[in-house]
Amino acid sequence: MTEVVQVELGARSYEVRVGDGELARVGRVVASLPGVTSVVVVTDTGVPEAYPAAVSASLGEAGFEPRTVAIPSGEEHKTLATCSEVYDRVLSTSPALDRHSVLVAVGGGVVGDVGGFVSATVLRGVRFVQVPTTLLAAVDASVGGKTGVDHVAGKNLIGAFHQPAGVVMDVATLRTLPLAEFRSGLAECVKHAMIADESLLEFLEQRSGEIAAIEPTTMVELVARNVQIKAGVVSADERESGIRAHLNFGHTVGHAIETSSGYGSLTHGQAVALGMRVNCRLAQRRGLIGGEVLDRLDGVLTCMGLELRRAGLQPADLWEIMLHDKKTRAGRVTVILPRGIGEVSIVSDVQADEMARALSVLE
Amino acid sequence: MTEVVQVELGARSYEVRVGDGELARVGRVVASLPGVTSVVVVTDTGVPEAYPAAVSASLGEAGFEPRTVAIPSGEEHKTLATCSEVYDRVLSTSPALDRHSVLVAVGGGVVGDVGGFVSATVLRGVRFVQVPTTLLAAVDASVGGKTGVDHVAGKNLIGAFHQPAGVVMDVATLRTLPLAEFRSGLAECVKHAMIADESLLEFLEQRSGEIAAIEPTTMVELVARNVQIKAGVVSADERESGIRAHLNFGHTVGHAIETSSGYGSLTHGQAVALGMRVNCRLAQRRGLIGGEVLDRLDGVLTCMGLELRRAGLQPADLWEIMLHDKKTRAGRVTVILPRGIGEVSIVSDVQADEMARALSVLE
Repeated sequence: MTEVVQVELGARSYEVRVGDGELARVGRVVASLPGVTSVVVVTDTGVPEAYPAAVSASLGEAGFEPRTVAIPSGEEHKTLATCSEVYDRVLSTSPALDRHSVLVAVGGGVVGDVGGFVSATVLRGVRFVQVPTTLLAAVDASVGGKTGVDHVAGKNLIGAFHQPAGVVMDVATLRTLPLAEFRSGLAECVKHAMIADESLLEFLEQRSGEIAAIEPTTMVELVARNVQIKAGVVSADERESGIRAHLNFGHTVGHAIETSSGYGSLTHGQAVALGMRVNCRLAQRRGLIGGEVLDRLDGVLTCMGLELRRAGLQPADLWEIMLHDKKTRAGRVTVILPRGIGEVSIVSDVQADEMARALSVLE
Repeated sequence: MTEVVQVELGARSYEVRVGDGELARVGRVVASLPGVTSVVVVTDTGVPEAYPAAVSASLGEAGFEPRTVAIPSGEEHKTLATCSEVYDRVLSTSPALDRHSVLVAVGGGVVGDVGGFVSATVLRGVRFVQVPTTLLAAVDASVGGKTGVDHVAGKNLIGAFHQPAGVVMDVATLRTLPLAEFRSGLAECVKHAMIADESLLEFLEQRSGEIAAIEPTTMVELVARNVQIKAGVVSADERESGIRAHLNFGHTVGHAIETSSGYGSLTHGQAVALGMRVNCRLAQRRGLIGGEVLDRLDGVLTCMGLELRRAGLQPADLWEIMLHDKKTRAGRVTVILPRGIGEVSIVSDVQADEMARALSVLE
């Protein structure tokens, strides 16, 4: 079974294919794009070699002679310096990339972000096909066109919006994913359910066994449903001026927890899970929702193997980090608060003491 | 007198103001943009200090407290490394740039390209106001949204399309411009006339005395007319998939001459002037135009103080460089050929020997 989700963005529309064994079909997807002259595969050294190899074989069958560029693995390499190495490789070695070339990124979020940013900026933009091999990249980063690298002053501070020409997700790649990374992706699935789709929450609750077993049919449905939700939001607000902000549910607090804990000490999804709990408590204290919303969130997070608490957080430190969040404007910390399951709103008047009280839900 | 040219690009439309004394009005232009939180002025060490100082004073009167970042002067600094320094300055020093900040680029093409690329990529894009202080930047780079930096493999290989929020051109800045730089800009004016507007060619022929004297009213009219022509082309073809290629008249050959001569040994405009002559000869040999077109081009180039010939060019070397031009596809060199004054077409079947014969017009 292969599910195809359309991301509607006018002239920049594209398809996300989700299936079992899709790596073997990447060549056909690239061949379907008009006028492709050459193909470069970008991957990282942490991706099992079999994946870029399968993609290259598929591209070879489609008549291309792809080159592969492997960047070093890890968020610490998501930098302008790494991009610079990729530019060197694709521009200085023959045959050089031209404007009709396609860059195929095979890997997780870092590969997608670096490959996407290079695609956005080399020769002022070439086409880009994303082949996510992590659940987080599949349900989150592969839809939306956000590309970018980190700067010493913060994450993703240098980047561009650049929509892919296509996305191909092979759920078979999830079988080699470390458990913590898998759960990190599941946290974003919970987030999508909380902001937009109660029936997805029911799916997560009822199919948690199949999900934990990475059962292919279940995973195809899970990924496709999440892509559909994110695609809907992105289509309505490509440049993040309005409702796309809903996707930040749990992220302002989550990013602050990630930053204060040091990157790598917990996964992005785990941090977002904690952030969602804090936002539910904030909403509950404001009377926007009853306690049953937090209870249900806690239940599904537990089923997904995510932690509900984290010791040693310092509310004052977290607040200081939130004040410097990219989305904070004129000193007003912005958070997304639930108004029920599948419904949220943007709130910009949270105060430090209110936040500190809500953070106690993590103790 | 201030002329205002509208660049029509839907939601990305903006105004180009051209006048005498406009530096003092930059603050008002920035203040007219919605929700500006802070302003950074980017300039280079080769720009007379009085210009960024005047812009900062104007911004101060409008209620902003601009910071100034000066990059090193010269094309050799149009690199990712320079961008990296600017990112550091604007992100790591307080108050850090936010998404509602505006970057104002004061200077020539390098400042516009670097400032534009940083604007396109910092925080995935902030607004950008261009204040060109050279004729070339005013009539060429300030319209069209091309931003970028050089790579060891070639010029402008890393970049993005990012339209400015506004452009302010003060013709008084042209008085401090070195003569060769001034003439370089005039070559692009001749190009606009040749591809799109015979009446502009007449203007250049008839007003060459006032132009050489940098008479303000004449210069305002000259810049505004050129911006209007370029804006019309860019509006019709923002991403350079069709008629925007006409703006490359003289550029394939010109770039090759620049590259083979070593950058800096002749100006960009001077190289384009030579390229236009070669393209006229190509068109003449193909019977597309009579000899009077080249004669008229030669006349106006001479009036503008541009050279008609260049010794020591090697046709085989130039051809090799043209084969590696960014716009060359599948080994087919593309040139723009005149079909009369103000009319051109795109030709992709030029052969090496035909090019060599046409290059003899430069001997």
